[in-house]
Amino acid sequence: MKKEIPYCDFATKNKKSVINKIRLYKHKGNFTWKGIKTEKYKTAGADWKGIIRKVLIGNHNESTKFHIRYFEIAPGGYSSFEKHKHEHVVIGIRGKGKVLCGKKNYQLNFLDTLYIAPDTPHQLSNPFQDPFGFLCIVNAKRDRPRILTPP
Amino acid sequence: MKKEIPYCDFATKNKKSVINKIRLYKHKGNFTWKGIKTEKYKTAGADWKGIIRKVLIGNHNESTKFHIRYFEIAPGGYSSFEKHKHEHVVIGIRGKGKVLCGKKNYQLNFLDTLYIAPDTPHQLSNPFQDPFGFLCIVNAKRDRPRILTPP
Repeated sequence: MKKEIPYCDFATKNKKSVINKIRLYKHKGNFTWKGIKTEKYKTAGADWKGIIRKVLIGNHNESTKFHIRYFEIAPGGYSSFEKHKHEHVVIGIRGKGKVLCGKKNYQLNFLDTLYIAPDTPHQLSNPFQDPFGFLCIVNAKRDRPRILTPP
Repeated sequence: MKKEIPYCDFATKNKKSVINKIRLYKHKGNFTWKGIKTEKYKTAGADWKGIIRKVLIGNHNESTKFHIRYFEIAPGGYSSFEKHKHEHVVIGIRGKGKVLCGKKNYQLNFLDTLYIAPDTPHQLSNPFQDPFGFLCIVNAKRDRPRILTPP
């Protein structure tokens, strides 16, 4: 039986051969895209709540050195409190949310762009009444997150 | 005298030491960000018109394997018709525009996401009445574009 790795989209697949072809993922409205499936944020763990994930770039055998994911946190939801060596770039595109990043709290609104440096403990959350959606861009090759005890 | 390289943001700077720190680039409205300057699309050339560039990630000594740029094409403007080995990911975020990509024409609306495969001739343009703004994500290490004769 294949063991699922309960970490976001870190190393969940065997490396496939590269197939680079032009692809257009049309936005169908409501933050869904043609040809892009909706997945769980992680396949296991009780340290997160109410998040879905859509991998825009990275699941179609592209050779890019980066992956682009859309995450959406429902009202009351939050991501794992974690750290890792790889960086995140987070760009708000739907609603607004909160980010605990290092020792500071930030609010992310539309198009606010946050660079989360390597090894920074961080957690995203949505204490608001509407969904909080954001792009998260990461290096294609990246280390496994380490889950931390919430503050 | 330092020679300027008239190619987008390809290799215009010497490599600097990496300085990774948390940074928040707040969206000030109207597709401008605090701490992000507005630059020309390219420093020379007559094969493009009416484009500005804002480098969100890539100009602050980050160690990311990718750069994130916001480009905006004014009504009537267009980018160079060119090709290169590196891929582009283009995500529409303001208005709408056209992309000639390979042999096809695409229209990009809000959040439409286009993967432009390596060595695909491509040109973005704005035949509409409002500004066309998009994110363009590329590998940090990339080859120099080759300008092509427009079709």
